Amino acid sequence: MNMPLLQVALDNNNLPDALKSALALGDDVDVIEAGTILCLQEGMGAVRCLRALFPDKIILADTKCADAGGTVAKNCYDAGANWMTVICSATIPTMKAAFKEVDDLQVELYGDWTYEHAQNWKDAGLTQVVYHQSRDALLAGETWGAKDLDKVTKLIEMGFKVSVTGGLNKDTLKLFKGVAVHCFIAGRSLRDAVDPGAEARAWKEEIAKIWG
Amino acid sequence: MNMPLLQVALDNNNLPDALKSALALGDDVDVIEAGTILCLQEGMGAVRCLRALFPDKIILADTKCADAGGTVAKNCYDAGANWMTVICSATIPTMKAAFKEVDDLQVELYGDWTYEHAQNWKDAGLTQVVYHQSRDALLAGETWGAKDLDKVTKLIEMGFKVSVTGGLNKDTLKLFKGVAVHCFIAGRSLRDAVDPGAEARAWKEEIAKIWG
Repeated sequence: MNMPLLQVALDNNNLPDALKSALALGDDVDVIEAGTILCLQEGMGAVRCLRALFPDKIILADTKCADAGGTVAKNCYDAGANWMTVICSATIPTMKAAFKEVDDLQVELYGDWTYEHAQNWKDAGLTQVVYHQSRDALLAGETWGAKDLDKVTKLIEMGFKVSVTGGLNKDTLKLFKGVAVHCFIAGRSLRDAVDPGAEARAWKEEIAKIWG
Repeated sequence: MNMPLLQVALDNNNLPDALKSALALGDDVDVIEAGTILCLQEGMGAVRCLRALFPDKIILADTKCADAGGTVAKNCYDAGANWMTVICSATIPTMKAAFKEVDDLQVELYGDWTYEHAQNWKDAGLTQVVYHQSRDALLAGETWGAKDLDKVTKLIEMGFKVSVTGGLNKDTLKLFKGVAVHCFIAGRSLRDAVDPGAEARAWKEEIAKIWG
């Protein structure tokens, strides 16, 4: 089982704040995500800055693209992003058009997606999906349960690299023991730590302990 | 039956090009849309420019928001947008959070949405949806057919203001005769006209002829 990667979601509300977070922990994660909020606030200039500061990191533009996949993906790639996201309700032609323009593409699982949809993404050549713990469930005090892990496992069995996100912290990583998660995505729990770099390193150590 | 509005989608790839389009026809439409491509490229600066140039127009930020609805909507509103879009696969709490922050919110219909979903949006207080003619169908040479009109009509009967978009031109408006469309949305067919302002006025005359 490969060691899961660690991704920070820079869902900061402006570029200065995002850069501060990126510089505090960018070297300690595997993937730096320009979050949707940041992309919509600052445009692809945010991705350009991240690429300039982290020339060798995987940079993900979390556009959650629903349409015009080819144009949006080309713009992300031109700005320096390796990966991009599309929303699960985008059409297959939109996903295919986007996939051509970037190194890799992630399908963001929101709403009532089905395994039949997932098979269509697979058939279209896509390799990555992002499983979100629902915000409703989190607000209701739930955490990652068997229901979520079953879905993640099924998607992995279908052949997807599955990233997981939503309300994760260092102590919840062990819930995924034995599951070949591709990448853990965290936002505030990394960015808002007293020492974000130390926190990212502690996550990596925990990941190594569980999956090493 | 109210007169349908006309909306230009500024799906330009950069701000200078978008401003050129906006100045050429902004005064002749009812709603000016900062397209998804433009928002992701230039950020909310694009919306700020449009608001500065068109202080009295309805400005729509086509974010197709899937998550963090409250933050994204507040950012759009702060930049000068009246309306915003969310993707149909966003959760109800995301839609509700966004709806609180803007004057109005449109649900973008992509993928396998159902009338049950639509009823949930209605129950959440949402009033607007955008019906897209599928890109696949357009590429396959189809146009707006009975199947589309039936769906649009059913959504109107449910109480939604329904905007329509996708491959529209001045000559296809008459296909919607008798249907209380809220707003016709056009991009290239307006922006790329030899005289965009004259083209927008010609659309408005055609709308007045059919619905007046």
